[in-house]
Amino acid sequence: MAPTDPLPSLAVTAAALAPFPTITVVGPTGAVGREVLDLLLRGGVPAARIRCIGPDRAVGTQVPYGAAQLAVESLRAEVFVRDGLALLCADADTARSCRELARGSGCMLVDNSAAFRTEPDVPLVVPEVNGSEFDLAACELACNPNCSTILLLVALHPLRRAFGIEELVVATYQAVSGAGAAGIEELFAETRSALDGAPPAPRVFPEPCAFNVWSHESPIDPATGLNGEEAKLVAESRRIWGDPRLRVSPTCVRVPVVRAHTEAVRVTLHTAAREAEIRAALARAAGIRVVDDRAHNDFPTPRKAMACDEVLVGRIRRDPCAEVGPDGASRTWSLLLSGDQLRKGAALNALQVAVLAAAARR
Amino acid sequence: MAPTDPLPSLAVTAAALAPFPTITVVGPTGAVGREVLDLLLRGGVPAARIRCIGPDRAVGTQVPYGAAQLAVESLRAEVFVRDGLALLCADADTARSCRELARGSGCMLVDNSAAFRTEPDVPLVVPEVNGSEFDLAACELACNPNCSTILLLVALHPLRRAFGIEELVVATYQAVSGAGAAGIEELFAETRSALDGAPPAPRVFPEPCAFNVWSHESPIDPATGLNGEEAKLVAESRRIWGDPRLRVSPTCVRVPVVRAHTEAVRVTLHTAAREAEIRAALARAAGIRVVDDRAHNDFPTPRKAMACDEVLVGRIRRDPCAEVGPDGASRTWSLLLSGDQLRKGAALNALQVAVLAAAARR
Repeated sequence: MAPTDPLPSLAVTAAALAPFPTITVVGPTGAVGREVLDLLLRGGVPAARIRCIGPDRAVGTQVPYGAAQLAVESLRAEVFVRDGLALLCADADTARSCRELARGSGCMLVDNSAAFRTEPDVPLVVPEVNGSEFDLAACELACNPNCSTILLLVALHPLRRAFGIEELVVATYQAVSGAGAAGIEELFAETRSALDGAPPAPRVFPEPCAFNVWSHESPIDPATGLNGEEAKLVAESRRIWGDPRLRVSPTCVRVPVVRAHTEAVRVTLHTAAREAEIRAALARAAGIRVVDDRAHNDFPTPRKAMACDEVLVGRIRRDPCAEVGPDGASRTWSLLLSGDQLRKGAALNALQVAVLAAAARR
Repeated sequence: MAPTDPLPSLAVTAAALAPFPTITVVGPTGAVGREVLDLLLRGGVPAARIRCIGPDRAVGTQVPYGAAQLAVESLRAEVFVRDGLALLCADADTARSCRELARGSGCMLVDNSAAFRTEPDVPLVVPEVNGSEFDLAACELACNPNCSTILLLVALHPLRRAFGIEELVVATYQAVSGAGAAGIEELFAETRSALDGAPPAPRVFPEPCAFNVWSHESPIDPATGLNGEEAKLVAESRRIWGDPRLRVSPTCVRVPVVRAHTEAVRVTLHTAAREAEIRAALARAAGIRVVDDRAHNDFPTPRKAMACDEVLVGRIRRDPCAEVGPDGASRTWSLLLSGDQLRKGAALNALQVAVLAAAARR
């Protein structure tokens, strides 16, 4: 429960990333890879520092980067250079290949896939939450948690630091971008068809996505009844917070939204808190923007969260059935959060991990 | 916890409604009114038994009813006749006018609005849940609960009867049809605009509805932080189940779905139950269809629930963090439900209340 040590700035800039002269983006044409390039461009990283590695079908094509074009190269060991940074924005198989090819190269990998998240020696990092717990100076591989986990933990971490957390009941409203660019394309194409009265023909998702919601499409573990997304939310929250007894009850559901996830959360604290204390803890936390205007019904939505670096948090309220102390303090609170799945849920978090690693290498 | 007395059939047919020779639909051009007419037509009720009452702007127009056309008349006291049934599918103000005009007429009113739901003398009825608790023979006014409450209680009632319920944590995924035909039109129009790249111009909802989700638009009570929809879910569940201490933690959210609501529910039972017992209780209950194929990721969705009479229930699983007995029994379970907001959430429930009242009048 002790406050985390002060973090260096997480701003993603050319200067912050200077200890990595070469930045390699593996999977630059996918939804997360494109977002990584957008953030590097925003941070003023010159095109000459960036290499793009794509699958065979993309090799030889060019990826726009501001006014420049980046040539897509093939994946091979030479890609991974000493003092390089490689941002892996591809699938788990590609991530495993990259790890093999990069072994001993001195290139740091930050992976977005689920390939290594459960390996105890590989840091699983949300900078605002556990960024100060790792020595990233010599780290060769770090992982992004699952997007839903990142957004949840950024929003809840201030409450955990101040009051402790015993239980989270979470229902997600997850954007189709979690399934990559193909998921976004399917949403738009199928919605057009639905408006024209055509029957749905889903390919990426197991259910029609237009004007529908559906239980997350990851496989169900027959032993637990949890789908893969829910199992990650439980396991990764426990691991990142170092609390194997944390109770997490997740229901992961997809909604026809492009690229920001929303989560309805009921949190039970260890220590009762008053509403003003809850709000103060959230208001001063890194990575959060409170959007909570009851009079105007202005709360987090995925549209508002789109292209934001922060996780939006609102609908902060005491549980209607909670035990309340004479000072209004309660252990059970509810809130709603929205965060950009491609940005803080993936690309931005990976780049912030790289910024932390860069700071450790100075 | 005693099993409810056996109910008469809830099938909505011309014969079941015979004790009401005249059936009046107030608000026949709205989303719920149209659904009521569809269900009366399906039940074989002849056009000659039906009267349609609309607002001034609709008077003189015709409403299709199978091959027939029904003339829309104006609202006046003569509409409410002895042994008549009036299905009020309009707003709360219209419902209050109808009650005044119908007073002493011997016409039974079944209201879909929130006008009378909190009056202790007015039955608030979900037939499968508390239908046997009322003497509807002489009842002049009964109410439909809120749509989210109806769907939730139909799905959970078998578990309450068998094991008791201590707490419900509910996150809703509510269709735009809850805001009527205008909500549905806004969803389609705004989605078309969004696909064409035009900026949103919401009128019915406070937020853009295309490719978005948003906290339910009902006003927030500054004292509790609950929106109106959440407050109804708490108050109506407690009232219908006769359990003022029931704990309900709701988060009500709208999604860009046309006409069926989905709800993610975590339920804490009074008595621990095994999964087989939970499934058996749900499988044999009235008004429910279990859709729960883990191998094929086939679970309730609003598309599957659309135009279904039943509430679909699935994703039945033990809470991953629940205390588990040696026989696998637990008090905490999760499930996902979807039900047609216009049908069981409104029109069908009202007609089933009328069927119960008709049976009591034979």
